[in-house]
Amino acid sequence: MSPHAEPPIPVLAEAGRVWLENLEPCLEHGRFPIKRTVGESVRVSVDAVTDGHDRIAVVLRHRPAGAAQWTEVFMRHVRNDRWEASFTIETLRAHEYTVAGWLDPFASWLDGLQKKVAAGQDVAVELQEGRGLLEAAAGRAEGAERTRLRNAAELLVAEQEIEDAVALVSAPDLARLMRRHADRSRQTVYQLVLRVDTGRERARTGAWYEYFPRSAAAEAGTGPGLRAAAERLPAVAAMGFDVVYLPPIHPIGHAHRKGPNNTLTPGPEDPGSPWAIGAPSGGHTAIHPDLGSLEDFAFFGQRARELGLEVALDLAFQCAPDHPWVTEHPSFFRRRPDGSIQYAENPPKKYQDIYPLNFDTEDWQELWQALLEVTLFWCERGVGIFRVDNPHTKPIRFWQWLIAAVKAQYPETVFLSEAFTRPKLMYALAKAGFDQSYTYFTWRNTADELQEYLTEITRPPVSDFFRPNFFANTPDILPQYLQFGGKPAFRVRAVLASTLAASYGIYSGFELYENEALPGGEEYLDSEKYQVRVRDWDQPDTLAPLLTRLNAIRRENPALHGNASLRFHATDNEHLLCYSKSAPGADGRENVIIVVANLDPHHRHSGWVELPLDALDLGPRDVYQLHDLLDDQRFLWQGPRNYVELDPSLPAHVFRLRRHVRTEHDFDYYM
Amino acid sequence: MSPHAEPPIPVLAEAGRVWLENLEPCLEHGRFPIKRTVGESVRVSVDAVTDGHDRIAVVLRHRPAGAAQWTEVFMRHVRNDRWEASFTIETLRAHEYTVAGWLDPFASWLDGLQKKVAAGQDVAVELQEGRGLLEAAAGRAEGAERTRLRNAAELLVAEQEIEDAVALVSAPDLARLMRRHADRSRQTVYQLVLRVDTGRERARTGAWYEYFPRSAAAEAGTGPGLRAAAERLPAVAAMGFDVVYLPPIHPIGHAHRKGPNNTLTPGPEDPGSPWAIGAPSGGHTAIHPDLGSLEDFAFFGQRARELGLEVALDLAFQCAPDHPWVTEHPSFFRRRPDGSIQYAENPPKKYQDIYPLNFDTEDWQELWQALLEVTLFWCERGVGIFRVDNPHTKPIRFWQWLIAAVKAQYPETVFLSEAFTRPKLMYALAKAGFDQSYTYFTWRNTADELQEYLTEITRPPVSDFFRPNFFANTPDILPQYLQFGGKPAFRVRAVLASTLAASYGIYSGFELYENEALPGGEEYLDSEKYQVRVRDWDQPDTLAPLLTRLNAIRRENPALHGNASLRFHATDNEHLLCYSKSAPGADGRENVIIVVANLDPHHRHSGWVELPLDALDLGPRDVYQLHDLLDDQRFLWQGPRNYVELDPSLPAHVFRLRRHVRTEHDFDYYM
Repeated sequence: MSPHAEPPIPVLAEAGRVWLENLEPCLEHGRFPIKRTVGESVRVSVDAVTDGHDRIAVVLRHRPAGAAQWTEVFMRHVRNDRWEASFTIETLRAHEYTVAGWLDPFASWLDGLQKKVAAGQDVAVELQEGRGLLEAAAGRAEGAERTRLRNAAELLVAEQEIEDAVALVSAPDLARLMRRHADRSRQTVYQLVLRVDTGRERARTGAWYEYFPRSAAAEAGTGPGLRAAAERLPAVAAMGFDVVYLPPIHPIGHAHRKGPNNTLTPGPEDPGSPWAIGAPSGGHTAIHPDLGSLEDFAFFGQRARELGLEVALDLAFQCAPDHPWVTEHPSFFRRRPDGSIQYAENPPKKYQDIYPLNFDTEDWQELWQALLEVTLFWCERGVGIFRVDNPHTKPIRFWQWLIAAVKAQYPETVFLSEAFTRPKLMYALAKAGFDQSYTYFTWRNTADELQEYLTEITRPPVSDFFRPNFFANTPDILPQYLQFGGKPAFRVRAVLASTLAASYGIYSGFELYENEALPGGEEYLDSEKYQVRVRDWDQPDTLAPLLTRLNAIRRENPALHGNASLRFHATDNEHLLCYSKSAPGADGRENVIIVVANLDPHHRHSGWVELPLDALDLGPRDVYQLHDLLDDQRFLWQGPRNYVELDPSLPAHVFRLRRHVRTEHDFDYYM
Repeated sequence: MSPHAEPPIPVLAEAGRVWLENLEPCLEHGRFPIKRTVGESVRVSVDAVTDGHDRIAVVLRHRPAGAAQWTEVFMRHVRNDRWEASFTIETLRAHEYTVAGWLDPFASWLDGLQKKVAAGQDVAVELQEGRGLLEAAAGRAEGAERTRLRNAAELLVAEQEIEDAVALVSAPDLARLMRRHADRSRQTVYQLVLRVDTGRERARTGAWYEYFPRSAAAEAGTGPGLRAAAERLPAVAAMGFDVVYLPPIHPIGHAHRKGPNNTLTPGPEDPGSPWAIGAPSGGHTAIHPDLGSLEDFAFFGQRARELGLEVALDLAFQCAPDHPWVTEHPSFFRRRPDGSIQYAENPPKKYQDIYPLNFDTEDWQELWQALLEVTLFWCERGVGIFRVDNPHTKPIRFWQWLIAAVKAQYPETVFLSEAFTRPKLMYALAKAGFDQSYTYFTWRNTADELQEYLTEITRPPVSDFFRPNFFANTPDILPQYLQFGGKPAFRVRAVLASTLAASYGIYSGFELYENEALPGGEEYLDSEKYQVRVRDWDQPDTLAPLLTRLNAIRRENPALHGNASLRFHATDNEHLLCYSKSAPGADGRENVIIVVANLDPHHRHSGWVELPLDALDLGPRDVYQLHDLLDDQRFLWQGPRNYVELDPSLPAHVFRLRRHVRTEHDFDYYM
């Protein structure tokens, strides 16, 4: 274990006449890897220049980290001395990339030859020079390629007609051979080798559903806990979710236990907060007695898998005062001058039910190792996703080490950061290795706010390391927009969360429009954090049908599986937000989703939206069909500006663009 | 000599709970230094965060390169976890800088204590904790400081009244002591040490005048050449220029010599181009026989110094076919298959009077060393400024090495890059070490073009490595704007060049409104490159008075000695360009220059200009005086929008802002 070891920045000597600068993507001088999932590509660009008029060749080099050989891809010049190429991540391994460049004297020579011939100049000496270049390349080639090059060298000076000589050396296959056997003895290699942190698809996209197993068990009434809680899984799967996330399932402390609504005077039956982890029955590797055993947990996981769901657990690295570690590992905690253990506080607020772990302890290596073992314990039991509680209150370097250590054994693991803190710290955690992060989405409600925030997080450099997971609500946050916007607010936020971000989630109760808060804040009234809540899932008017439809739309449309293609489009009504996403579809055609949402939960709004026809590959007079996947309506639009009208009862269109509209040309007898 | 050695990127291990990112300024991961002149400051900023609520301390560290000790400056938090501090370059040496950060538990503790006391909580244990922090710091301090800290520790727990205890530990001097003796054993040091390339003032600002000594000698008619050419110096000095730049003064080749107007059939008296360097009488370290001897050059330099002028020489690293190196060092040139030496070409154009040096030769070390010796030869003879001809046709790494090698011995040397090429290559040369560069200024004529280009080159990152030198004309470039704009075009370009850029220059003849070009291009008719031109400097209507006034304004106003403060201001007439610069004045007040220029040389224009009153420290109703330093007119303006009208006869205002306008309050008897 080497918690302070970060991969060093590899420095390569630069030599040669090609000058390489500004390789992108590159995070903090290569200190952090960019993130991609298997199947995604990395578009690499670099400035490459040389002195004078000489032509150059530039290659992108990439490999799985640790592989001996680079794979090389010739880069193409885009404009203004910027070169570009891409590669695709094909295996769940870290990757590396850099670039190299060298002079291409054959291309320079051929260019000059063609110009001189066109100007009618004598080129006898030039042909001799060309022969020399071909022969030198032949000396670096082997077999048939060597023969081809050597023959070209001889033929070049033997040709009677200069036009024939030029045609001979202008053959594309010869150019390729000459590139392949270039003299690279003085090539320039970029000073940094950069890294790609590779994740599986679920690191990028998925629909999450959070519920408290103790409430679900109470609803089912068929204990023991986790087996009963599993009875909620079919309904979650039926709504089309991918991930079911459980708050901590461990024993809950008794000392300073919180009562309903965060009160300090619980009754004997009050269950306490699941985040106050640890009791005589065990700590972070135990299961709360009321929820059952590890076998029950295995049953729960198996049931979820059968339904196509994956289970995400909570990693909350803090202890209740009765956590076994408090006595077994006193050095894991900070002791005050009076001998007491330091509880959590944010002065003048005190949280006496929580003992933070002391990451600066002299025994930090033992502590860090213990936390790694906790994580691996659950990995070994099939958990592939962790939602990490308050990571911003633990050292960033700890997470950097822990996540790397876990992924070294379980590369498919996904870590979601629950860091509601300042932007730079949220981003630092993402750079340190978290696959996904909670966001400020719950507090971005107007079109202007959403457009600004989404533009920031879906564009490089942020999008290269930060993947948003848009939770519409959480047990901690019932946003004011939902408190006061009525059912239309829940509808539009469901549409926004599920279509703006490739990963999104809801906390159960959202689909029942639960909107009662403690006064003056964003805490739920009678929060499930402190008490069991039994809900009536069979009530008539719920959001389940809309969520089911949205999740089905997400599955069917690859456009919604990523964020990089997100673009916003102008509307003439500030309450109307319009955006699109696109991706290659399974049928080979571009899959394009266009969303228009009425953000005002109180009033019907109408207006004109303006689409970028060029970007959508549409001509200015083309008629195109917009198929609303929510209610199956179809609209024929023409030109960039079109009218929409949205009532809060169904406050959004989720259109799929169908470019080809049938005309008389499609009629059998037209031909 | 180690031409391929570039300073490696120093990598420092990062540890600790403070997380540092995005240190600026930083060019290409620290591969290139930023540029400053002695007296200029470097404003450094960095993102610094830590987990949780702990307070942190961040320092900027700087030192002359190679010094053992860092000087440290505490950085201040600006916003959004961005920290900032500055340091000033005081010696003509390369400098280094980086940052470090650590936790500040005393500040965290004090903050918590104050909040708890305000909330009426018992803080007996907190005071014990504070004592511990003070005692630990005392253990790291010495002498009186140790005593002060130890006393504070004892007093803290002895105070009867909690208010007194809080006051005791809130003393500012105690905070400073605690910062100075912080526990930095787990501090984080930024991963890179960055560098500053330090130049003297002339690297940043100066007015240049270029003339051909052979023409000046012919005008004087008093040979030998350089002594006669020196007779032009008083007039140049009288106009207020700082630098007199001479095209190459070396022997000129005879083979393939060019005649007037670049013809291939020179007469026996035609002098040839000074850039075709080398003849039997010598090469790059010789002086053309017609111009005299090294003693005459010393005389010329001495005369210039007496007049407050500095001489800049031309470094044109290429040879005429009769250059001594062609026979003495045949390996310095590229030989073709027919045994001939490769002349310069840009197919299909051939330049048979020039042999380029072969920087890729097997003997490159000998060649590079020879070129260094040429440069040092002139340094030893008092030349402190070189204008480098076509540096973009020689390897960038060669310049990086040569400039570093020269500055190691002559740190005051200034290198001006004459690279009219693509932007990335121009910038690469600047990063490689050139102090200044020619620019695209001659081809930027409209307000829109000027604003866009100047904004690019006067803002970071470009301004951190690229210093423009705005030549209004050169022997190679008579811009179309001057060819067709008449005298007003010369006037406005003189104002723009001298006030937009801290360094600017003209090539002689500009002040005589010389505007006859070869048809269809930008070459002067009867170009002085190929023939001697004798001018009548005494003709009545010249630009000399305006140039004299502009250079005087430049000397008197520090605002014009830098580029970073340049800001453009809106006008309602596209032909009117308005901009300002500012700097602290000698009197301690801010020196502000505001320029309004009519860019249309054919018509009078009027319009409204809009000044940013806040930035100028003016209230919305303040009356302020604008003193036109060109014609000594004074205008009283009020508010942001004011009217201007400019005739092509004097197409610009160069205002000095005088904020205080006298009122009755200044009258003796008012008080």
